[in-house]
Amino acid sequence: MDQTPPAPPPAESPASISPLPAVEHQHVRFAEGLELDCGRRLAPVEMAYQTYGRLDDRRANAILVCHALTGDQYVAEQQPITGKPGWWARMVGPGLPIDTDRFFVVCVNVLGGCMGSTGPRSPRPDAAGGEPWGTDFPPITLQDIARAQEKVITHLGIDRLFAVIGGSMGGMQVLAWAALFPRRVFAAVPIATASFHSAQNIAFNEVSRQAIFADPDWNNGRYWTNGRVPARGLAVARMMAHITYLSEEALTRKFGRRTRREATVPAPIGSAAPAQSPLGLFGEMFEVESYLRHQGSSFVRRFDANSYLTVTRAMDYFDLAADHDGDLAAAFRGTPTRFCVISFSSDWLFPTSQSRLIARALNQAAANVSFVEIETDKGHDAFLLDEPALDRTLRGFLQGCAEHAGLAPGVAA
Amino acid sequence: MDQTPPAPPPAESPASISPLPAVEHQHVRFAEGLELDCGRRLAPVEMAYQTYGRLDDRRANAILVCHALTGDQYVAEQQPITGKPGWWARMVGPGLPIDTDRFFVVCVNVLGGCMGSTGPRSPRPDAAGGEPWGTDFPPITLQDIARAQEKVITHLGIDRLFAVIGGSMGGMQVLAWAALFPRRVFAAVPIATASFHSAQNIAFNEVSRQAIFADPDWNNGRYWTNGRVPARGLAVARMMAHITYLSEEALTRKFGRRTRREATVPAPIGSAAPAQSPLGLFGEMFEVESYLRHQGSSFVRRFDANSYLTVTRAMDYFDLAADHDGDLAAAFRGTPTRFCVISFSSDWLFPTSQSRLIARALNQAAANVSFVEIETDKGHDAFLLDEPALDRTLRGFLQGCAEHAGLAPGVAA
Repeated sequence: MDQTPPAPPPAESPASISPLPAVEHQHVRFAEGLELDCGRRLAPVEMAYQTYGRLDDRRANAILVCHALTGDQYVAEQQPITGKPGWWARMVGPGLPIDTDRFFVVCVNVLGGCMGSTGPRSPRPDAAGGEPWGTDFPPITLQDIARAQEKVITHLGIDRLFAVIGGSMGGMQVLAWAALFPRRVFAAVPIATASFHSAQNIAFNEVSRQAIFADPDWNNGRYWTNGRVPARGLAVARMMAHITYLSEEALTRKFGRRTRREATVPAPIGSAAPAQSPLGLFGEMFEVESYLRHQGSSFVRRFDANSYLTVTRAMDYFDLAADHDGDLAAAFRGTPTRFCVISFSSDWLFPTSQSRLIARALNQAAANVSFVEIETDKGHDAFLLDEPALDRTLRGFLQGCAEHAGLAPGVAA
Repeated sequence: MDQTPPAPPPAESPASISPLPAVEHQHVRFAEGLELDCGRRLAPVEMAYQTYGRLDDRRANAILVCHALTGDQYVAEQQPITGKPGWWARMVGPGLPIDTDRFFVVCVNVLGGCMGSTGPRSPRPDAAGGEPWGTDFPPITLQDIARAQEKVITHLGIDRLFAVIGGSMGGMQVLAWAALFPRRVFAAVPIATASFHSAQNIAFNEVSRQAIFADPDWNNGRYWTNGRVPARGLAVARMMAHITYLSEEALTRKFGRRTRREATVPAPIGSAAPAQSPLGLFGEMFEVESYLRHQGSSFVRRFDANSYLTVTRAMDYFDLAADHDGDLAAAFRGTPTRFCVISFSSDWLFPTSQSRLIARALNQAAANVSFVEIETDKGHDAFLLDEPALDRTLRGFLQGCAEHAGLAPGVAA
């Protein structure tokens, strides 16, 4: 869910796309590990995280921000691999809606991720020579992801989070937190999300996975042995997913049918340029194509294919009502948490109807809930983009909750 | 746009997926060829077609049915490669809405296709040893496709078509026919289509193409030299496209989140099964995944990857208004053709708004036009499926036009 403007894609051969660079992330190690939903114990577990702001003396001003499928813990600072600003730098920071002058913000790289938390890239404990888990990494669930985050929160000495906030898969984590640890979440903001992954979304995820499997460099997940990552397959997966993050209106507004006339048509990702690209009718390509190629080729430099498989699978398996005999309200019965459910009118990946189901279940559970559908043509990605109505909604809800929680303004200042 | 019910995908290795079988199709050869929109002359041109019913003595009862991206000329009879019924067997036949007791129905495999008409699989005239065109096949447009059909229609001795009917890309051909040859089209029925390909649709097509390029068996389009077709890439392209043909409602109704518990999880398309599939959390897979894999793996047995590239590109370049300084109405000014524009309420690939643009332009051109949006949850594929409102609409429109045209009922009986 990059916000990168269109740029000419680099004509790069797959040989030059190396695996993710080794970056040292701030992390904590839990030797005892974690009991997973699949019944296996994963140990040790390392969790990478970043924090912003200062925890107040009562340890009452912490906000957990949960990242989306391809996000990471670098919410409000430069991402160490891409060098780009944090993915929510417009939302989290001094004076911003999630105000780090006031709140202590924590973001944890998800279990199964590839930015320092234990995942398919991590060394498999029982393997010689530090061989990674790869596809032998145990299947995980969104609840496992929340439980791993909980260990970090406890490690930081935080008993109760002032708020848990996240969009898309981050919103699934918010719901998992509220269901698993209701007494530890004062306020919850699930944005552009769902209480279960729909058939259509499972279908899109499955095509993403098939694109990765189709890349011979995937090598049944053991791509570290061939020294080449499945860049082409992962790029295709990303390109397709990226379309689903936008809306037809946004794509029309940004690109329409504009073409770029180029002397040489950029090569397909990971391919040597054919002498005459079959794409270049009359020597043109559409701007939307150039943009998507850029999205695909930049993504493969910062994300791991096996993590993509693991985490998309966790999303597919998310179905909070199924854990409660099909009764979503039962997941929240008696909850003390205050909820603000937010959706975007043009989001077709996690449509408003899904947020309405959540709000209805919370009402049935007699929870304190407000529900806001924000009118926008930006699609699912609206939660990452300049959307003043989202800023206002978040700021207002957090302010109201802070008053109820007895958090003085500027408590950490 | 198969209607195939879900079935367990065959666990097939790519080596066993051979190029399309050689099938003899009914065809006509035009030695002089065709002047293309790109400025090149393509010669010779062979066009494969099928006909149903009998041309009446006045040669006034002919209906041209135009097929969609992955359709073919086998409208109402067994497809020779798959052995399945014709793609519109429920619509075209004796007593059916496109009644072959009454009308003479022609369907032509599109130029650039792979079922007998000249396309990337055809031998390149200037190459030794019958080497195919491959990616050197000239870029074509929907208008080129219509002009190639027009040669077949003229060859059959038909001066004026009673009707031109088609859905999706078939509908684009209907519009191209009406714009290019207004005096030769008495009635036109563009279904679930658009007068231009939107940015979102171009984006989806581009991802399809990148999936094909990402398959090493594509071999820069010269896959006949390696004896293996890019089956995995083409299957991924098909799977993704297939999602766009349905609707979220249809996917939920057909599959929901139902899983199949299987001892062995089917292998990804074209891959040897990994010992333990990373997909098989708790030994399950979702039914929608199994369905999509089947769609992908059956498609590659009947379609050619270079044709997919060529024809998707033609769709991307379709923009009828652009040929008339941005004025779509100018494409139809003074037309004598009667139009029936049909859309489906849950079609998000070619939404009703696109059909409304067409109807509005036809109104501005003072054309005789009716516009019907059919309420259905079946998505874009509704035009291929059991949709009684579509049957009624088509039957009624054709009956009304037949009366105006002075076609006696059962004229060909």
